[in-house]
Amino acid sequence: MPERLPNDKASTRSPAQEATALDVARRLTGIAASPGLGIGPAFVLRPPDLRFEPQESGADAAEQQQRFDEALQKSRADLQAVREQTAQKLGEEHAEIFDAHLLMLDDPELLDQVAAGLQGGQSAETALGAVSDTFIAVFETMEDEYMRERAADLRDVRNRVLSHLLGRPLTSLGDLREPAVLVAHDLTPSDTAALNRELVKGIVTAVGGRTSHSAIMARGLGLPAVVGVGEAAMTLESGISLIVDGELGRVLVEPGESALTEAQSRAQAYAERQGRLLALVGTEGRTKDGTRIELAANIGSPADLPIALEYGAEGVGLYRTEFLYMAQDRLPTEEEQYLAYRAVLEGMHGKPVIIRTLDIGGDKAAPYLDLPEEENPFLGFRAIRLCLARSEIFRVQLRALLRASVHGDLKIMFPLVSTLEELRQAKALLEEERQKLLAEGAEVAQNIPVGIMIEVPAAAVLAGTLAREADFFSVGSNDLIGYSMAADRMNEQVSGLYQPLNPSVLKMIQLTCEGAAHHGRWVGVCGEMAGDRLAMPLLVGLGVTELSMSAPALLSRREQLLNLDLAQAQRVAAEALTLGTAAEVEALVHREFGDAVAQPFTDSQGGE
Amino acid sequence: MPERLPNDKASTRSPAQEATALDVARRLTGIAASPGLGIGPAFVLRPPDLRFEPQESGADAAEQQQRFDEALQKSRADLQAVREQTAQKLGEEHAEIFDAHLLMLDDPELLDQVAAGLQGGQSAETALGAVSDTFIAVFETMEDEYMRERAADLRDVRNRVLSHLLGRPLTSLGDLREPAVLVAHDLTPSDTAALNRELVKGIVTAVGGRTSHSAIMARGLGLPAVVGVGEAAMTLESGISLIVDGELGRVLVEPGESALTEAQSRAQAYAERQGRLLALVGTEGRTKDGTRIELAANIGSPADLPIALEYGAEGVGLYRTEFLYMAQDRLPTEEEQYLAYRAVLEGMHGKPVIIRTLDIGGDKAAPYLDLPEEENPFLGFRAIRLCLARSEIFRVQLRALLRASVHGDLKIMFPLVSTLEELRQAKALLEEERQKLLAEGAEVAQNIPVGIMIEVPAAAVLAGTLAREADFFSVGSNDLIGYSMAADRMNEQVSGLYQPLNPSVLKMIQLTCEGAAHHGRWVGVCGEMAGDRLAMPLLVGLGVTELSMSAPALLSRREQLLNLDLAQAQRVAAEALTLGTAAEVEALVHREFGDAVAQPFTDSQGGE
Repeated sequence: MPERLPNDKASTRSPAQEATALDVARRLTGIAASPGLGIGPAFVLRPPDLRFEPQESGADAAEQQQRFDEALQKSRADLQAVREQTAQKLGEEHAEIFDAHLLMLDDPELLDQVAAGLQGGQSAETALGAVSDTFIAVFETMEDEYMRERAADLRDVRNRVLSHLLGRPLTSLGDLREPAVLVAHDLTPSDTAALNRELVKGIVTAVGGRTSHSAIMARGLGLPAVVGVGEAAMTLESGISLIVDGELGRVLVEPGESALTEAQSRAQAYAERQGRLLALVGTEGRTKDGTRIELAANIGSPADLPIALEYGAEGVGLYRTEFLYMAQDRLPTEEEQYLAYRAVLEGMHGKPVIIRTLDIGGDKAAPYLDLPEEENPFLGFRAIRLCLARSEIFRVQLRALLRASVHGDLKIMFPLVSTLEELRQAKALLEEERQKLLAEGAEVAQNIPVGIMIEVPAAAVLAGTLAREADFFSVGSNDLIGYSMAADRMNEQVSGLYQPLNPSVLKMIQLTCEGAAHHGRWVGVCGEMAGDRLAMPLLVGLGVTELSMSAPALLSRREQLLNLDLAQAQRVAAEALTLGTAAEVEALVHREFGDAVAQPFTDSQGGE
Repeated sequence: MPERLPNDKASTRSPAQEATALDVARRLTGIAASPGLGIGPAFVLRPPDLRFEPQESGADAAEQQQRFDEALQKSRADLQAVREQTAQKLGEEHAEIFDAHLLMLDDPELLDQVAAGLQGGQSAETALGAVSDTFIAVFETMEDEYMRERAADLRDVRNRVLSHLLGRPLTSLGDLREPAVLVAHDLTPSDTAALNRELVKGIVTAVGGRTSHSAIMARGLGLPAVVGVGEAAMTLESGISLIVDGELGRVLVEPGESALTEAQSRAQAYAERQGRLLALVGTEGRTKDGTRIELAANIGSPADLPIALEYGAEGVGLYRTEFLYMAQDRLPTEEEQYLAYRAVLEGMHGKPVIIRTLDIGGDKAAPYLDLPEEENPFLGFRAIRLCLARSEIFRVQLRALLRASVHGDLKIMFPLVSTLEELRQAKALLEEERQKLLAEGAEVAQNIPVGIMIEVPAAAVLAGTLAREADFFSVGSNDLIGYSMAADRMNEQVSGLYQPLNPSVLKMIQLTCEGAAHHGRWVGVCGEMAGDRLAMPLLVGLGVTELSMSAPALLSRREQLLNLDLAQAQRVAAEALTLGTAAEVEALVHREFGDAVAQPFTDSQGGE
């Protein structure tokens, strides 16, 4: 029996609606990876047949080495071309992935192992297959999602070299001539580089999550995408009619007339709204009555800047530096960090950039740090605690930040501060490194503002004291809610207690704002609440003046803000604090703000 | 080189003090299990030689069965006598352990397995040894400390039966004729039952922790004890001079003159103070100006009542019912629970008893509940969360509580409440069970007060709302501090952040008191802070009117309270809230209360 659309209610359905429900032949569900609706015939990207007869011995080593070198050479030429295309279409940051691919082609460890196989009499295909499979397997067993994704890169590179060895060209998206919905097992970076933004209406992949290449690229290209729908995707035939719903994370296969009509009207509404929102790029965040609210972006690396700017970020409210520490199997050097921080500061052209110091530990692991196993990692040795205990690591980051400070409007932020002593210790280390740099003759900006995240309940209630010594606060709502409710949101048994709108959470934020105001400090929010349409008016009403969120949510919040009256927001927030439950607060927000909080489209989330 | 006493400071030491330090030949350190100082010659209790030649086959089954039955019969007679002695000396509750021993003698599984061994031709000693060793090994691998301690009971029973089989009598403490410090590998319940309280001056054991029988019995008998000093204890010779320091957890072996003199004067000071404190039994907790503060005890089972009453508990502020659930490999029945709750209510003779509903999960496991593995168990599925999700378990407890309610002054308390909905759901289940019981014709008390623990930061800041629907609050300071500071106190990397005197923790308690006062509710504290000499004046100053703690701390707090002026406490608490760090608060308390908070003797701690 076909699944029904979730909006269908059997009890209240008219005969015409029945027909709508039943004419949907099939549906695939997956992860909503990039918003929007895409309609069109499927273009199924089937991987080329790269199978070969293994030959373990007896091959002529010199001949095989020559074949391998030629295939490498051709692959190098391909990749350089693809890199150019990508830089033009998507910008330099997106092209950098191909530098990584080019480096893999020159990786001495990989090349040496292949050469050893060839010396042993293996064919070039066999040696390359064996060596790359081993590397891929190692990447795939890593805990860190980022490193696991590197396995996809290596697979892409291996297939490219194999295709040249076998003389079987890779299917190219360059072959696409008609508008289509792209269906693939997974999109390699090379695939996405080759795709034509005008013709591709949406993306469906069998595997992948929200941080897979396919998902990131789809968001970068503004294409609706549903990823991880399972192997059923590959059973689709090219040409079959599809609707990709990047909002609900589903794909309708051979939709009926009425479903198609509905999707077309939703797609049009989405496009109109996108147009309206994009017109807001370049404007400042202000409430209806003109109160300035800064709308900034959360980023994880310099590569996120283009999207942030595209959505009109007025600054970076949270630059999570931990990815620098998780992308490699060693600590990043001072120079590597300096270059990354400088790239972000310069990329923001003088707009404010808040760089958060290392927040590692807890769920974010870096195996080379050899951190202890903990019974309750979220209540353990992480973030500023780890940095103060291992100050030799922390000092390197502080130096890199101080050196980068002259390249833009830098603010430094410490995560997970629980006590005044921690803030004092962190500031003392920063001052020591500043003095050292000055003594070394380095340039360092004057008066870099130093703030803290408010994530620990103790910090929220102690805000009035902490504000004496911190220049600003940024509420990390994700962790603050988790600790306040004593509930790990990743634990499905208790995730229902993770309630952003619970009056107790609002009270924590109110105490933070009150404490900050007492010393003339400002309060931002960089957790998911900042980008949430229901929570945003309450945050503004409580006194928050900066909201930092994932870039795709920025314009919706800017539009919402333009219709928000500060006095009303303050009155509603005050009333919310007197209520008993999150459900009561949600009902209040709906009652007071009506349509403004009942958007038909969800914005991509992401924050602390 | 001998270790030095911690008080010795090389730089400021006189020649006479040098002599003091050097004349201490040896020192053993262990766990301070029961306070006080004991001085006297060692009486080393060596286990009897219960070795035997194993015989695996060829023995006459009928003959061996008869030998075994006779040994069981003699053991039964022993245990009944020991039970009588214990009931007279220590009270009925302490005697109950021997009922457990007697049950072990009749355990059908154990007897059947022994009989099977005898049928196979084993000697009675061999069969008993093999079967009991298997059971002991199973107990010892259990995670729960309580169950591991049951291994000691079975070992005690086995040795008793073996001693009769072998005709080698167990060394009895009944042989003791002179004052002595008792030294043993571990004390069995039988040992402690036989010991003469007048002659034994202190206890030293090689193994065991704060919850081992030796420790519990020592506290019950008011004897200083140091447990877990290691096997070095058994190398001591009977007659050698010892000082047992149950305060610092150390044993001085052959102390010199000056150490002996110092110990005697400390022992005397301790005894005088104990005498002064015991004179307070029967009085009410009041501040200097006469404000009533109820001083109640935390208990884990009915067996804890005698000690609670001995130290003048005015009620039970926290009865942790989870031990009922952890002592067996299945859920306790309604009847078992009813009997336990009734025993506590009756044992308190009309004084108030707060029974906390099941707080299991997190670090407290019950394997038979088959709870999910969690990444962060402290932020997970525990306490009221588990009870509401598995209401079939919860309802049994609620029924048992309701039925017991007519036997005393019962108050019911729900743990780990984070939201108003949880309180409402728990109260609704209670009301449903009350209606069912009334319909069944059972007797249930009218208007049983229903309160909640304040352990979750969200509950503390939402106290003003929760107080509308909860009759009282009891602050579980241990968890409240852990969640507020986002620090697991069991994790040594962050245990320094577990700061009871941090102004943020005091602020959480102040918000709780303020919210409660708004609706005329009272606030108690049942965590370790309640029994802490530094924290107590602040709690009273913040508005707490009930303090529940481990019984041995009750009298010290009562004495301290008698010297505490409420107005001063309020002023100091208000000032503490304005300070920045725990260290500043501690300095303030010392400055304001001087000697009253600088006691020479520590009180045993324990609380939520």
